[in-house]
Amino acid sequence: MRFLHNGCGPDREGEDAMTHQYKSARFDIDGDGIARFTMCKPEILNPLTDDLRDDFEAMVNTVEGNPDVKVLILAGEGRAFSAGGNVKGMAERKDAQAAQARTRLYDAHNWLQRLYNIDCPVIAAVDGLAYGGGFAFALVADFIFASEKARFCSVFGRIGLMPDLGVLYTLPRVVGMAAAKDLMFTCRSIDVEEAKALGIVHQIHRSETLMGAVDDFAARLAHSSKDAIAITKRTVNGAFESTYGDVVDAEANGQAVMFTTPFHKEAVRRFMAKEPSLYDWDRMTK
Amino acid sequence: MRFLHNGCGPDREGEDAMTHQYKSARFDIDGDGIARFTMCKPEILNPLTDDLRDDFEAMVNTVEGNPDVKVLILAGEGRAFSAGGNVKGMAERKDAQAAQARTRLYDAHNWLQRLYNIDCPVIAAVDGLAYGGGFAFALVADFIFASEKARFCSVFGRIGLMPDLGVLYTLPRVVGMAAAKDLMFTCRSIDVEEAKALGIVHQIHRSETLMGAVDDFAARLAHSSKDAIAITKRTVNGAFESTYGDVVDAEANGQAVMFTTPFHKEAVRRFMAKEPSLYDWDRMTK
Amino acid sequence: MRFLHNGCGPDREGEDAMTHQYKSARFDIDGDGIARFTMCKPEILNPLTDDLRDDFEAMVNTVEGNPDVKVLILAGEGRAFSAGGNVKGMAERKDAQAAQARTRLYDAHNWLQRLYNIDCPVIAAVDGLAYGGGFAFALVADFIFASEKARFCSVFGRIGLMPDLGVLYTLPRVVGMAAAKDLMFTCRSIDVEEAKALGIVHQIHRSETLMGAVDDFAARLAHSSKDAIAITKRTVNGAFESTYGDVVDAEANGQAVMFTTPFHKEAVRRFMAKEPSLYDWDRMTK
Repeated sequence: MRFLHNGCGPDREGEDAMTHQYKSARFDIDGDGIARFTMCKPEILNPLTDDLRDDFEAMVNTVEGNPDVKVLILAGEGRAFSAGGNVKGMAERKDAQAAQARTRLYDAHNWLQRLYNIDCPVIAAVDGLAYGGGFAFALVADFIFASEKARFCSVFGRIGLMPDLGVLYTLPRVVGMAAAKDLMFTCRSIDVEEAKALGIVHQIHRSETLMGAVDDFAARLAHSSKDAIAITKRTVNGAFESTYGDVVDAEANGQAVMFTTPFHKEAVRRFMAKEPSLYDWDRMTK
Repeated sequence: MRFLHNGCGPDREGEDAMTHQYKSARFDIDGDGIARFTMCKPEILNPLTDDLRDDFEAMVNTVEGNPDVKVLILAGEGRAFSAGGNVKGMAERKDAQAAQARTRLYDAHNWLQRLYNIDCPVIAAVDGLAYGGGFAFALVADFIFASEKARFCSVFGRIGLMPDLGVLYTLPRVVGMAAAKDLMFTCRSIDVEEAKALGIVHQIHRSETLMGAVDDFAARLAHSSKDAIAITKRTVNGAFESTYGDVVDAEANGQAVMFTTPFHKEAVRRFMAKEPSLYDWDRMTK
Repeated sequence: MRFLHNGCGPDREGEDAMTHQYKSARFDIDGDGIARFTMCKPEILNPLTDDLRDDFEAMVNTVEGNPDVKVLILAGEGRAFSAGGNVKGMAERKDAQAAQARTRLYDAHNWLQRLYNIDCPVIAAVDGLAYGGGFAFALVADFIFASEKARFCSVFGRIGLMPDLGVLYTLPRVVGMAAAKDLMFTCRSIDVEEAKALGIVHQIHRSETLMGAVDDFAARLAHSSKDAIAITKRTVNGAFESTYGDVVDAEANGQAVMFTTPFHKEAVRRFMAKEPSLYDWDRMTK
């Protein structure tokens, strides 16, 4: 384990001045390049407090562009992945100006948009409630693994808000317009089976085996070309609003770069030499 | 009942000069804020005549921005929701210039685009044929409830036309590109089960119970924040063609406004006081 | 049969100077307006060689704007529709500059984008592997018919490349964002049942009956208005990235033209005269 920033364990001495002190999440990167960001305020359902925002931002600062990270896993301790917005905080800020609310959202997107486009695959492990902002965090992941304990909810409208933290952007791209409106207008919660049927959840596992399944999946993804995943991810994330010509530009320029990568050159060498592939999911799953 | 503009009942005297005389639809807004627009030319399958266009436009003028309307229901009497374009009218206009056809479509979108983005949830109750323009009207609704009598068809190509009245915009966002091309190219009709599987239909009910189910659903939606629904709807309607940054702008500015609304403030107060929610679908459905 | 450009049969004498000599595909247009482009290098799994690129381009040059072509069928001989990129070619070009790789992709899109928007329906008949570029070719078709032998794979990432030939544009529009990332990141292959569930495959037929089913479907589509299909196709292809207003412009201008077409005028005449329709899928399927 190369990094350990444990915001929920016992106090540690001698923290490097450059090291963020995680308060509402644990963060580590293991020797296999798997980074884990685990929200760890289960007693209050991992709400989006200012501390958690700071932890997310610090994590993004560490992971983005970090060649040691191959896959990032987002998780939450206890019975919530994250219950989202901190209504108590809203109550305290109730006299704040609208302009401040606006600034808080732009501030959050400074790291959330970077997380959405971060240069490695991201898996959300949802073993409980993913409500509001918690739903938003799951939706910026590339894959959502969930257990029978998972429930998803675009809860914003229940308190007279619009969906935020990107849900209006991410959710329709996954479930289509009609289902997005259903979830956003009714603000009803859905269970894991419905979330799977809608395409939100990639795999369902029993709660006891969820993290093991996520770890196995991450270990496989870690064999991929980080460069190829990064450029594929950024391009597909913007694919719906892009014209054919926009995508051709991204593809032609991007692929030219990919042809220069050591991963590609080694993969071609192995192919010609009839050696085993660097990354072949079909064989890995056998 | 606050408004009653009955285009299909007996003639009424003393119509206010400002009141549109509905000819091909009935329109009313009840005391609970549920507006109902019911096409009422069943003997000719509720086609898109000039009269019906005028009725739609008048309805939009009344509903848009009207604080008394919480939910709008679109329905059709008889065995068609609406059979769409008026081929007889096309035959009569057959020598009209192409430029006039073009103008007629822009004229229709003057109210249809406003209806698509109107500031309350819209439910289409489809108890029969929704063909061509009738399919288009259903697709501008946020929710389609339908019975076993419903059939949907992008019928345009059968007479050598392209889909119009927004179907090229709305349908792919609901069903995806491949299914949209199937329906638009073959112009085959689909039954309610297939429409549900494609995501077009939100709920199926037996014909006898359809309107009751729509009324129940509307009554629940009427508890929501009209402001939050309005801004959510306009933003999600444009979500596919928007960049992440576009949506962030809409969200940050919009949410700042939502935080100032009485609905939000009361919802937060109730949350902190542990009082029942203003709008909680999960509890309402119990 | 009006055209015959057989790249895989015996040599033929007296080829017209204007006629492309097909080398890796057979191409013909039959008397019913059905064009067939069949990749015919089964022993090497129909890879995207320079010869095949030239054949595609020549075919597009012949089909585009050709009033004799009502439907285009893409197929592959043997156990692959197309295995896609020619890794051997990549190995040979391994010292080529990135700038050349970029140019090769722009060159391919010169005909691939035209094929995507070509003015007739396109059916891909997939009776084997559709991998990488082969998957891309299937995805530019409007309908994919496939047999139990079909397998689809966004194989690019296995050799450290990003998806190219438009897959980043076409695939998300068909399957949504989450499934697109799954297929692009894991590069796993999927069978025909999963491809149907994802919306990629329109119809599954047994291998022995696949081409017959494609021919029947093409024969039905050939009754449609070529003008209406062409304009519908180009507009829906760009629908996701278009605003409502963009689509209204395309629709208003396009429909004005459609009203002037002989097909439309004859269809209206038949409707008024209660004569059989020119194009009615529901009746054809009975």
